[in-house]
Amino acid sequence: MTIVRSRSQIPEEPVGAGSGTRRQTLTVPGSGSGFHMRRFAMEPGGGMPRHTNLVEHQQYVLAGRASVGIGDDTFQVAAGDVVHIPGGTPHWYRAEGDEPFEFLCVVPDDEDRIELLE
Amino acid sequence: MTIVRSRSQIPEEPVGAGSGTRRQTLTVPGSGSGFHMRRFAMEPGGGMPRHTNLVEHQQYVLAGRASVGIGDDTFQVAAGDVVHIPGGTPHWYRAEGDEPFEFLCVVPDDEDRIELLE
Repeated sequence: MTIVRSRSQIPEEPVGAGSGTRRQTLTVPGSGSGFHMRRFAMEPGGGMPRHTNLVEHQQYVLAGRASVGIGDDTFQVAAGDVVHIPGGTPHWYRAEGDEPFEFLCVVPDDEDRIELLE
Repeated sequence: MTIVRSRSQIPEEPVGAGSGTRRQTLTVPGSGSGFHMRRFAMEPGGGMPRHTNLVEHQQYVLAGRASVGIGDDTFQVAAGDVVHIPGGTPHWYRAEGDEPFEFLCVVPDDEDRIELLE
């Protein structure tokens, strides 16, 4: 297990279910005690449609701003905001403004499945 | 459980074992599936002496730079770096430069104990 590395060394992969959305796996599932970290970047106007995951998300907004729908509510989030989405809860993202929307997303190592709702 | 909140709404507490070091609990232990997020800020020149924790740390550097000792190695880390410290591994931090060193630190909800080594 690599102890320290820069995120610039970690490949970015497009997220097929989203638009203008890329994901980096910052720590590797199974390398720790049951959770791992990812980083997402969404271009302005990009995002993810309404969907559910099996796993919870604990997120921290690094840069930019977005509209985020969670259950029946819509939130305006920006750098420094903490977002907690329980497993199974419908949610969506739309990057707002002129700069990419970037956030960390910590999830359990448990098996996940995405289900699109629209 | 609060779904979205700004870190500016979350109290900062001094970390007794450190110098110039403050901690925020971003997500609450027990509210998720076995892990939670904290944010640390260390003033220039501040940090934490060499110590161990029972729990692993998965960290992401938000701002500033620091020297971080992990086991027998010392790393220079800066914004965008990912740091993974296995449970029980001796480690220390010293904030370098002129701005605060800030990082997220995700840990399991398991009981922790800090042991100072110097």
